[in-house]
Amino acid sequence: MSQRKLKLGANLNGVGNSISFWRHPDVPTDASVSFEFYKKQALKAEQGKFDLLFIADGLFINEKSNPHFLNRFEPLTLLSALGTVTSNIGLVATLSTSYSEPFTVARQFASIDHISGGRSGWNVVTSPLEGSALNFGKGEHPHHSLRYEIAEEHLGVVKGLWDSWEDDAFVRDKASGVFFDPAKMHTLNHKGKHFSVQGPLNIARSRQGYPVIFQAGSSESGKDLAAHSADAVYTGHETFEEARQFYQDVKSRATEYGRNPDEILIFPGIGPIVGRTEEEAERKYQEIAELVSIEQALNYLGRYFEHFDFSSFPLDAPFPDIGDLGSNSFRSTTDKIKREAKEQGLTLRQVAQRASTPRSNFVGTPEKVADLIQQWFEGGAADGFNIRTVVPNGLADFVDLVVPILQQRGIFRTEYESNTLRGNLGLSIPRNRYTLKPEVV
Amino acid sequence: MSQRKLKLGANLNGVGNSISFWRHPDVPTDASVSFEFYKKQALKAEQGKFDLLFIADGLFINEKSNPHFLNRFEPLTLLSALGTVTSNIGLVATLSTSYSEPFTVARQFASIDHISGGRSGWNVVTSPLEGSALNFGKGEHPHHSLRYEIAEEHLGVVKGLWDSWEDDAFVRDKASGVFFDPAKMHTLNHKGKHFSVQGPLNIARSRQGYPVIFQAGSSESGKDLAAHSADAVYTGHETFEEARQFYQDVKSRATEYGRNPDEILIFPGIGPIVGRTEEEAERKYQEIAELVSIEQALNYLGRYFEHFDFSSFPLDAPFPDIGDLGSNSFRSTTDKIKREAKEQGLTLRQVAQRASTPRSNFVGTPEKVADLIQQWFEGGAADGFNIRTVVPNGLADFVDLVVPILQQRGIFRTEYESNTLRGNLGLSIPRNRYTLKPEVV
Repeated sequence: MSQRKLKLGANLNGVGNSISFWRHPDVPTDASVSFEFYKKQALKAEQGKFDLLFIADGLFINEKSNPHFLNRFEPLTLLSALGTVTSNIGLVATLSTSYSEPFTVARQFASIDHISGGRSGWNVVTSPLEGSALNFGKGEHPHHSLRYEIAEEHLGVVKGLWDSWEDDAFVRDKASGVFFDPAKMHTLNHKGKHFSVQGPLNIARSRQGYPVIFQAGSSESGKDLAAHSADAVYTGHETFEEARQFYQDVKSRATEYGRNPDEILIFPGIGPIVGRTEEEAERKYQEIAELVSIEQALNYLGRYFEHFDFSSFPLDAPFPDIGDLGSNSFRSTTDKIKREAKEQGLTLRQVAQRASTPRSNFVGTPEKVADLIQQWFEGGAADGFNIRTVVPNGLADFVDLVVPILQQRGIFRTEYESNTLRGNLGLSIPRNRYTLKPEVV
Repeated sequence: MSQRKLKLGANLNGVGNSISFWRHPDVPTDASVSFEFYKKQALKAEQGKFDLLFIADGLFINEKSNPHFLNRFEPLTLLSALGTVTSNIGLVATLSTSYSEPFTVARQFASIDHISGGRSGWNVVTSPLEGSALNFGKGEHPHHSLRYEIAEEHLGVVKGLWDSWEDDAFVRDKASGVFFDPAKMHTLNHKGKHFSVQGPLNIARSRQGYPVIFQAGSSESGKDLAAHSADAVYTGHETFEEARQFYQDVKSRATEYGRNPDEILIFPGIGPIVGRTEEEAERKYQEIAELVSIEQALNYLGRYFEHFDFSSFPLDAPFPDIGDLGSNSFRSTTDKIKREAKEQGLTLRQVAQRASTPRSNFVGTPEKVADLIQQWFEGGAADGFNIRTVVPNGLADFVDLVVPILQQRGIFRTEYESNTLRGNLGLSIPRNRYTLKPEVV
């Protein structure tokens, strides 16, 4: 039995990633703006000893957007509220480096880290949606490579601000009247290509040193950013081999940057559908898939390709050649859609159905799902998984049926090791750049 | 007995506005980053049937800053967390229009409004501190009048985004598969001098329509912004006559803008010190005042004047003539300091002590404090008060000793009228600009 333990995250996403998920009889249609719904999910994940909750985000909608995207909580305010109703589980949310100020980002995540006693994490994204620029007064959405250049600098500034105060800076001695030691307060004075930020930040480091850094882009630039600067990667791979290659790729890039590859954790996102029998699992998938009309499926697919209109193409002919379209927004997703369509000879209808109703290989009995998870985990394809709910009560099914098997097999915890996210993930506390002595991990 | 009821807000500010408050034996020195401390204060205010909690903010610190400013929670994340541990009290926080994106501001306050069931409020400020620009990559801090021009446009954009969805836009009909009515989703398409924001916002209006808008600058531009666009004003006046003039001024400006003057509430901020006897109250003040050294008091005073160094001036000579200094940051405060020094012939030492250890007229027995409050409230100088804590347990003293008297006199509620902030303040729900029929208030 290995010492290494599996990690688990729960993606919470209200009325769901599937466009018609909300139509299922068991789904509350206001879930995306119901704090009670999120609280219940969070408590279920904590009951299952999950490492973290994960909240995705986006900054542009139009009438073709997924229902969940139209009307949902802003992630940081949601995260902070969830921190008060949970006690051990980590709190990770997406925030874009393309449309935010490092000073504000550093403050808000640090503040959540203090409020939650050391459980916050930031999923660094660069915003795939072109339209985001229109909501933030920018002339045009920066190109993919520029977005990653901005992201590297932004993240560097945020980490610098998090180091503003050494851990023992706040003396707080009532007798002498010394509140803090000015020698342990540091001004960043960053002047870079994209940002100019003086500091210091007006909040101390918390128990985690830095909130945990997730990264969620799977392009070459995304993998480099992760390998260089992230603690964890959220990725999406359907097959073991694909996931294994990605895993090895990111770990070796991290090694090239001089990092210990165990200090960057890879979390494929999966949408398990668990039934007590194979038939029950299959029935659950069909209930969801049948809620989506073909028109809706085509609309949804188009969203990845800069809202391209697929409706004039024949449904049962091979997926059409649309050239370079999509390469500046969801690049890794659109590349994958095109590649699979070609390799597997899929029709437009099949591509649209797969895109609109996610169905991973993780469909079946609890044992089958646990077997796959163990295979990926032990076979060098994953350090953990982010569990997306694709059927109603999917998180509860996973917690009640799959988690006990993983625990019996000794690959998943039966109790939290820590009440910080870094502690549970087994990640060390980053040293403050201004502090000479090493910190105790 | 009047139908009109007094409103009360509680300013929560950790280790306090006074620079040496933290040295008092009864003050927890980590209060500014202790969620338990804020939670306890919030519950005390809610026990006292206060209308709202109020969180101030600032975006620049240096080694001369007030201890509370150096290391404190970010207001919106704090507000969201406080929303989950309270049930009726309003949640108001400061956020600057000079250094934020309207799209993000609109989302975060709307999200808190949903999470709290309709209790959020935004205190609109323009950031008095020059140094803020250095933390946000801006070449220089915009001048006072430009900041207010930006604020007007920013607030207009935020309100526009809050109207993105009509109240009945989300149909959510599972049978027909219609999630929303596209005709009730609105794109703002704002293109102004300072902001360009398309919309729509990706969250619906909440029960309040708009979160409550506070405004907190008392300059001419500040009063105009309030009269034009705010639901409430947080101001600071020491004397009844001064407060009455301000009150009448803002109300008549609101009337000139075609508004009902009852729809803009004036909240002077006061720092009551309540003792069971006059002597006890006086002793409480002295305990705090004696914690501040003259060097600290001069530093603190200098902060209002662009960190001017007063230490080379004679302490017991009249307050020196420093010309126009301070007029581009805390204009109304510095004007007031200069005016009072001149009118009352104060020395530099006296000015510094008054500035560093706030002492209002509201010092004394519960009856005396209640009398003053009633006089201001009934005499046209206030609709409510924001209560600042200037001695440890000052909020508890006020709730336990003064509130019952105000309730007995019939000018303050004994139970919440509503569980929204607008409901308790007696403010109507703003109509959505795109909705023809009037909304029920």
